[in-house]
Amino acid sequence: MASTPETSDLIAFRRDLHERPEPAWREFYTTARIIEALRERDVDGIHYGRDVHRADARMNVPDEAELAEWYDRALAAGADPEILEALQGGFTGAIAVIERGDGPTIGLRVDIDGLPIAESSEAGHVPADEGFRSKHDGYMHACGHDAHATFGLGVIDEILASEFSGTLKVFFQPGEELIVGGKPMAESGHLDDVDSLFAVHIGLDHPTGEVIAGIDGFLAVRHFFAEFSGEPAHAGGHPEQGKNTVQALATAVQNLYGIPRHADGATRVNAGIVGGGTATNIIPEESFIEGEVRGETTDLADYAYEKAERVLESAATMHECEVDIETRGEAPSAESDQELVDVVAEVARDVSGVTNLLERDELGGSEDATYLMQRVQDNGGYATYVGIGTDHPGGHHTGTFDVDEESIEIGIEVLSGAVLAVAERGVETE
Amino acid sequence: MASTPETSDLIAFRRDLHERPEPAWREFYTTARIIEALRERDVDGIHYGRDVHRADARMNVPDEAELAEWYDRALAAGADPEILEALQGGFTGAIAVIERGDGPTIGLRVDIDGLPIAESSEAGHVPADEGFRSKHDGYMHACGHDAHATFGLGVIDEILASEFSGTLKVFFQPGEELIVGGKPMAESGHLDDVDSLFAVHIGLDHPTGEVIAGIDGFLAVRHFFAEFSGEPAHAGGHPEQGKNTVQALATAVQNLYGIPRHADGATRVNAGIVGGGTATNIIPEESFIEGEVRGETTDLADYAYEKAERVLESAATMHECEVDIETRGEAPSAESDQELVDVVAEVARDVSGVTNLLERDELGGSEDATYLMQRVQDNGGYATYVGIGTDHPGGHHTGTFDVDEESIEIGIEVLSGAVLAVAERGVETE
Amino acid sequence: MASTPETSDLIAFRRDLHERPEPAWREFYTTARIIEALRERDVDGIHYGRDVHRADARMNVPDEAELAEWYDRALAAGADPEILEALQGGFTGAIAVIERGDGPTIGLRVDIDGLPIAESSEAGHVPADEGFRSKHDGYMHACGHDAHATFGLGVIDEILASEFSGTLKVFFQPGEELIVGGKPMAESGHLDDVDSLFAVHIGLDHPTGEVIAGIDGFLAVRHFFAEFSGEPAHAGGHPEQGKNTVQALATAVQNLYGIPRHADGATRVNAGIVGGGTATNIIPEESFIEGEVRGETTDLADYAYEKAERVLESAATMHECEVDIETRGEAPSAESDQELVDVVAEVARDVSGVTNLLERDELGGSEDATYLMQRVQDNGGYATYVGIGTDHPGGHHTGTFDVDEESIEIGIEVLSGAVLAVAERGVETE
Amino acid sequence: MASTPETSDLIAFRRDLHERPEPAWREFYTTARIIEALRERDVDGIHYGRDVHRADARMNVPDEAELAEWYDRALAAGADPEILEALQGGFTGAIAVIERGDGPTIGLRVDIDGLPIAESSEAGHVPADEGFRSKHDGYMHACGHDAHATFGLGVIDEILASEFSGTLKVFFQPGEELIVGGKPMAESGHLDDVDSLFAVHIGLDHPTGEVIAGIDGFLAVRHFFAEFSGEPAHAGGHPEQGKNTVQALATAVQNLYGIPRHADGATRVNAGIVGGGTATNIIPEESFIEGEVRGETTDLADYAYEKAERVLESAATMHECEVDIETRGEAPSAESDQELVDVVAEVARDVSGVTNLLERDELGGSEDATYLMQRVQDNGGYATYVGIGTDHPGGHHTGTFDVDEESIEIGIEVLSGAVLAVAERGVETE
Repeated sequence: MASTPETSDLIAFRRDLHERPEPAWREFYTTARIIEALRERDVDGIHYGRDVHRADARMNVPDEAELAEWYDRALAAGADPEILEALQGGFTGAIAVIERGDGPTIGLRVDIDGLPIAESSEAGHVPADEGFRSKHDGYMHACGHDAHATFGLGVIDEILASEFSGTLKVFFQPGEELIVGGKPMAESGHLDDVDSLFAVHIGLDHPTGEVIAGIDGFLAVRHFFAEFSGEPAHAGGHPEQGKNTVQALATAVQNLYGIPRHADGATRVNAGIVGGGTATNIIPEESFIEGEVRGETTDLADYAYEKAERVLESAATMHECEVDIETRGEAPSAESDQELVDVVAEVARDVSGVTNLLERDELGGSEDATYLMQRVQDNGGYATYVGIGTDHPGGHHTGTFDVDEESIEIGIEVLSGAVLAVAERGVETE
Repeated sequence: MASTPETSDLIAFRRDLHERPEPAWREFYTTARIIEALRERDVDGIHYGRDVHRADARMNVPDEAELAEWYDRALAAGADPEILEALQGGFTGAIAVIERGDGPTIGLRVDIDGLPIAESSEAGHVPADEGFRSKHDGYMHACGHDAHATFGLGVIDEILASEFSGTLKVFFQPGEELIVGGKPMAESGHLDDVDSLFAVHIGLDHPTGEVIAGIDGFLAVRHFFAEFSGEPAHAGGHPEQGKNTVQALATAVQNLYGIPRHADGATRVNAGIVGGGTATNIIPEESFIEGEVRGETTDLADYAYEKAERVLESAATMHECEVDIETRGEAPSAESDQELVDVVAEVARDVSGVTNLLERDELGGSEDATYLMQRVQDNGGYATYVGIGTDHPGGHHTGTFDVDEESIEIGIEVLSGAVLAVAERGVETE
Repeated sequence: MASTPETSDLIAFRRDLHERPEPAWREFYTTARIIEALRERDVDGIHYGRDVHRADARMNVPDEAELAEWYDRALAAGADPEILEALQGGFTGAIAVIERGDGPTIGLRVDIDGLPIAESSEAGHVPADEGFRSKHDGYMHACGHDAHATFGLGVIDEILASEFSGTLKVFFQPGEELIVGGKPMAESGHLDDVDSLFAVHIGLDHPTGEVIAGIDGFLAVRHFFAEFSGEPAHAGGHPEQGKNTVQALATAVQNLYGIPRHADGATRVNAGIVGGGTATNIIPEESFIEGEVRGETTDLADYAYEKAERVLESAATMHECEVDIETRGEAPSAESDQELVDVVAEVARDVSGVTNLLERDELGGSEDATYLMQRVQDNGGYATYVGIGTDHPGGHHTGTFDVDEESIEIGIEVLSGAVLAVAERGVETE
Repeated sequence: MASTPETSDLIAFRRDLHERPEPAWREFYTTARIIEALRERDVDGIHYGRDVHRADARMNVPDEAELAEWYDRALAAGADPEILEALQGGFTGAIAVIERGDGPTIGLRVDIDGLPIAESSEAGHVPADEGFRSKHDGYMHACGHDAHATFGLGVIDEILASEFSGTLKVFFQPGEELIVGGKPMAESGHLDDVDSLFAVHIGLDHPTGEVIAGIDGFLAVRHFFAEFSGEPAHAGGHPEQGKNTVQALATAVQNLYGIPRHADGATRVNAGIVGGGTATNIIPEESFIEGEVRGETTDLADYAYEKAERVLESAATMHECEVDIETRGEAPSAESDQELVDVVAEVARDVSGVTNLLERDELGGSEDATYLMQRVQDNGGYATYVGIGTDHPGGHHTGTFDVDEESIEIGIEVLSGAVLAVAERGVETE
């Protein structure tokens, strides 16, 4: 990307966010910086705080102490105190609105959260070499969401500079990595008038210059946290007085993996993290299973989840324990609409730097952009999930992940081009 | 106890130890203080460091960093640096020897370690009220081993002041709470010429004034730590590539509790602490079970342990995992010999302050004094485990446990009286 | 035993029963022969049919076809049709009453059922050599109940020939081997006025000439039959449509064996027989577990049974199945009263042929005479379970078991002597 | 079908077979009747007995007594004794060969075995109404293999009446329902020169007049029988002496259903039939699991089978038992070749009575014709699995299944037409 003043601003913005990766519901600095940048631009509306989420749909919100720690860190790093105030309680994320005359309402969804992964400090890792490595030990933008936020800002710049007629809403969504932010933002009301939605991801093992017009194959997923409580007892003296949560846990694990396969398609179950007990000589009175179920469709994930609940509850009952099951994150499956795939494909072919266009690809993982896509589709609109290739040295979710900043400009061009195309020509349907 | 200068010294000694509770293999301060006190007395030998343990019988020794932390703490608290030097690597504990002419070799075993329990700071808790509460946060002498060490010193004082003829060895044993110190001290060689051994415990729900001449009913026990290792894989993308240690763990737990009961007597199994996995979407590649088996006899504990090993190994094999099983602590069962029970009973009846004498009682738990008792018995000698009642406000292993210091003098009188009786009259056998 | 006309009658009686072993609730021939023999004697009452059982306490009664088969066999073998009529529905067993003036009511309980074991036909096996081997293929008196019934008849003869004053009730109990006959007879009402009860067993690894005055150590036991029902489905085509009873069964078995050990004493659990499913390619919709729990005391057996029920029900619920749990047999623990033990011991010492008297022994198994013993004891009476040694070539419940007929006379002498002693002198209590 | 003398013969042949349904390796009467019919025709070779199977590839052959029972029944029903002689040991099935000048070698595979299902005797069920209902109680041609055998004979008639030049081999295969006959016949050598193979099935929920030119979607499958052996012990007296096969069984079942899902496609596992134990009070020393694994591909079935073996063996080892695992039946997956699908489609369109032609359909079940198809394909030849619709009142494998005899003629026309087309024009390849 030629270092025009404009793009160098965006790169600086991306690098600023890269230095301050923040996980779900703790994106205080990130959100403040986005809002500050939006305020410098001629946008018509900036929504944030409690306004951008259906509060009771938020999952896995950290406790007060954890929120306070990240809040204070953002404050210390220079985030606007007045903005931060509005984000209290972890109401992170923002929605920018541009209204320019008649025309369709078009949405763009970008996610903004970081990961609990330690960033490489080795030579050759660009953020280390060029001095914008993470300042939060053990946390990192290892999935490119810093670039995604920059896509959002760049598209706004392009649209503001264009003859755009219609409404553009850019959704800066928190908490994608834990699949907790999609649902509350999808149900905030702001999406309800959107006719066409673009979601976007960088990388995904595609090189710089490659663009995917429509990604599918999202596995529906549900994270759960099951906490068993029983009664302790001395294992030597009075084993019969205990209510043994580790027996409940083991029974549950055995039967979770035994949930029947389904004729309608693939399902998955994993008891990813387990723990329990306090001492070798005490009947263990507390245990937990943190796990997930997935399905090729949302129905299949629901099928597996219902079975899992039954297994967990029966295992607890069997050992006279209680179990509390909490959904910690969730995303449905979704499909990209051919109508928007066609638009993106047509636009992308003409974007400078695009060397290869794939019409479709499979994700094979999970994403909560699907909540927003589904919402728009349920209202009769269209959605597509666009992939923007980038040469990334390390894999996603590794300490050496990085994006090729050249690809940021490509993404902005493709996405803003698609927004303008929809605004001008509409979505063709058969 | 009348505050004679002598007893007030012993009380001060006990309170000093009380302030510095140290867990297994970390009794640096405690050991140093004991040795310093012995040096002030006219004893004929003081053994410590590598001399008092069979090194390869030590179990569950903490890592370097952990040992260093407690070592430094002892140093800072004023322990003799030269003594500490000899204890490096966690070779804590000491053996004092008094040799006075002909006569039998008599042993007294007292244990000296503390517990990872937070001491009460509430009014009414004597150590809090009188200013000798634990200075090590989260650690406490909650089982009276500070009083036990004091018994050892007090008995030495009494014997030195007597017409004793024979040899007395006092074993200040570390690491009883984790049942790790008994075996290496029993196998150090120092016990091999002991004809009669007294072990002792304070409290055990008996009030001040009550003495038990011989305690039995020790459950043999074996702590184990089983670590499973498999292979991680993405739970959504490639579940078949994982080697799932949580499935191995669950299979093992189910079958550990299913180890068959035994006609010869009671057995126990407990998977006390379990854990595994790293993320909900990763097939869990590391897991562990920390647990124990017990038996009414050592054979029964061995039976259960062999079954447990087989279960753990087969569960690992089933899921293509490895398992590494380590014994973390161990104690056999043992019985008090009637010959010494008779001696203690006869002596105790005449001790001032003894208001009730029980000839026998059952412990119903585990203790690694049994290693020393068994060693002496295997060599043709006699052993008994003596209980000295004390009014203790809170239960053993709770934050409000405390001993009635009056009972310390009683214990010293009973034990020294028994030592003298054996030295003078021998052990009567039928 | 000298072959007096009288004893040769009893031996013939025993051998007749030996030829026709009948299992629980199918003792048609046996009951008829007992009643026929009683009718030849001067007894005051003979109860049988529905009168001798609390009908709703009968467990594990065979189906019509099975009952009919044994009924017809008894008829064909010459049993009195009029008596058989009264036993229809499997109301087997009888109670004989002798009332002779004032005095206590004394009971004697003998059991009469056979076992599903094939009798040896080899030379050296007395019934084979002397021509009274079982005529029912696969069934055998392999536990000596033919001798027990003969004890009952012989004691009646002795009492009728004596100066007995009081009431004697002899309980010929069916269905001991399946522990199903004790409860309904104990609750029939006939036992409610009994002051002292003698139960008896021959053999038990004691030789001819040895008598045990009081046997204890009965394990309380409960047999259960748990039947799971789910839904079939094609295992390849629609596994998700099944409700898999074999998964429920496996989950239950794993957790039945994991029922916690109890501090109060020994417990036992066994899933002795399991089965389920119809085809390899059908999700199995029917399964069962037939098993048992035991306890050193009735409370311990109840503890284990409650746990077992919970396990079975939760395992069914977990897999969306139903489970129907039926108690198929049951017996409490019991203890022999010292008062009657003293009587038996005193009497037995003077009986010709008694060469060794043991006051007490442990059974280590289960017996439903305990129901009758407990009933009498609950009403303030006394009970003892007497052992009569016999040289038995094969072990109990093997095809070569046999009794030394000499010991039958000894048993009759001991038991009738004890009955007379109680009638004459009463039971001495402290 | 117009009742020409010829077709009425074939119908009579089909009805004769229908009356004598015989399961795997017991098709004595069926095979004899086929051979007798072949002898009446001008075929060039008839192979049967040991010649038509690789003997050591036969699975699940019944024991002598079972074979003898069906053999005698066939004899009594009038089967040719000389032919039966050659089938001894269960070497059922036959291969007919027609050699007529130059040309390709074409195979037709039809299966001939019946099912252990009771045939309906209700009015409306044609075999009942018209008097050719099964004469073997509890057995039935409930899957149309009587019609398949008739296809074979009918095609031979058509080819004999034609100008056919080439070689035709008709494989009358036994034991399809248990998937045991395909492998030994495929490996007999007779298939090795076949260039093109047609396999066929009637019905499959397609109505009379519908033809499917190529069926795919066969799940690879493997039936296994796992027999655990341990040691019995008295469950009350000495539980520790047992080696408990029911614990092994339960552990295995739990973990069989937990075999990880596979990214490459669907897998299935079912523990379809289980059983074990002898008495409630005996630790169960014998148990079994009869089950199956399936996979969308042969590799996936192999994956699941290897996992299952590991589970079964580890579960046995865990409980100190042995396990013997036997494959009882097996079939790979397979695909129909487009080359032959095209031939069948082209021919079928012109056959009278064909009202609907489907080029492809999915079976969604298992079939061991796949062994023969694979063999031919591995040798460079082509294979297709043809479906011939028939109005069947009851579903496959139910007591009211029946075929519409009109469809038999259609099948013969389609198959013989395809054979002739291949012989005349060859198989076109791209």
